[in-house]
Amino acid sequence: MDKEIDAKNISQAVISRLPRYFRYLGELKDSNVERISSQELSEMMKVTASQIRQDFNNFGGFGQQGYGYRVNYLYDEIGKILGLNKTHHLIIVGAGNLGQALANYMNFERRGFHFKGIFDSNEQLHGKKIRDMYVQPMENLESFVKDNDIDIAVLTIPKTSAVAVAEELVGYGVKAFWNFAHVDLNVPKEIVVESVHLSDSLLKLSYNINRKENEDEE
Amino acid sequence: MDKEIDAKNISQAVISRLPRYFRYLGELKDSNVERISSQELSEMMKVTASQIRQDFNNFGGFGQQGYGYRVNYLYDEIGKILGLNKTHHLIIVGAGNLGQALANYMNFERRGFHFKGIFDSNEQLHGKKIRDMYVQPMENLESFVKDNDIDIAVLTIPKTSAVAVAEELVGYGVKAFWNFAHVDLNVPKEIVVESVHLSDSLLKLSYNINRKENEDEE
Repeated sequence: MDKEIDAKNISQAVISRLPRYFRYLGELKDSNVERISSQELSEMMKVTASQIRQDFNNFGGFGQQGYGYRVNYLYDEIGKILGLNKTHHLIIVGAGNLGQALANYMNFERRGFHFKGIFDSNEQLHGKKIRDMYVQPMENLESFVKDNDIDIAVLTIPKTSAVAVAEELVGYGVKAFWNFAHVDLNVPKEIVVESVHLSDSLLKLSYNINRKENEDEE
Repeated sequence: MDKEIDAKNISQAVISRLPRYFRYLGELKDSNVERISSQELSEMMKVTASQIRQDFNNFGGFGQQGYGYRVNYLYDEIGKILGLNKTHHLIIVGAGNLGQALANYMNFERRGFHFKGIFDSNEQLHGKKIRDMYVQPMENLESFVKDNDIDIAVLTIPKTSAVAVAEELVGYGVKAFWNFAHVDLNVPKEIVVESVHLSDSLLKLSYNINRKENEDEE
């Protein structure tokens, strides 16, 4: 093991900010920026420089007084904390509009996720080519997951089938889900689940509009 | 104004849990369940009964000792807090797979968001019918937004154009964005933005898988 950071003692609040740091650093890197001060990063990201320094201190700092942060180094280190140096095998279950959107636009490979296959129960979609994959029937799931060491499944299926399909996939060896079905999965606690509940997000939007309007009325 | 809840003093943590309560209560309501105890709700939702009671106390409680919560009443009250009794006019900008997925599967109307139109810069999509709407060119945006009192725009366009399009839409009167472009919008602070950064969510998934693997190695 290389220089190890004690990831367990990093708060979830810091963790939840890492992807955004990673995104901004990626853009700086793409623009060939070599170093940046916490002050400059603060202005770009609209968070305080002190917050940035505190957050980065969790990972041993990365910075040098009066010099700023080395963009490439910081990008790589945060990438390692995010586990992007590891390789995973991923399938998408559900080849409707959302499954297709994710297959076409998410750069899974850049994050170490190798996109290996896409499945749907709808016969009319079988054999349809999405990116460079043919949509496969659900009957292929078991052998495909086992033969290809699939450890991650993206679920873009209706909530009525998601819970059962997730349980089935866990039985075949899937270790993590990126879940877009609008339901809480019922899987053992060692299984990692990251849910994107779009309806919940829409309700938050509604709440914030409502609050703003009430403020304006006062 | 009817009985008003002091929404400003409710913590963001509570607010962020409301959509999930609303979802579970909606399912109970659809199953014709009339009342439920905090204990039963706790088991369903896998949060503590004490957390549920505390959360609901923010809104005046809603419950009666020994009787439990009235599902319909609670559903309606949380709906009001979330602003679902208000009406909004919404457009989708970006008619690719993701825009189409949202147009087809999000039940916007159930949440008071009236879906009025969908736009794209790609000429090949113009005139294509999505749900019951024809995709319109971006040149129509200004007049359409003004003529139809559009207050919400869903952005499912690439990050390279999202910032400029958002600024343009604010100029036409849009008050809120549901933003799927992988970029932070640069809009005045009175404009409400709810962003769904799918890449950030994928990185959180990666982080949690990595953490789990490191734990297992120990």
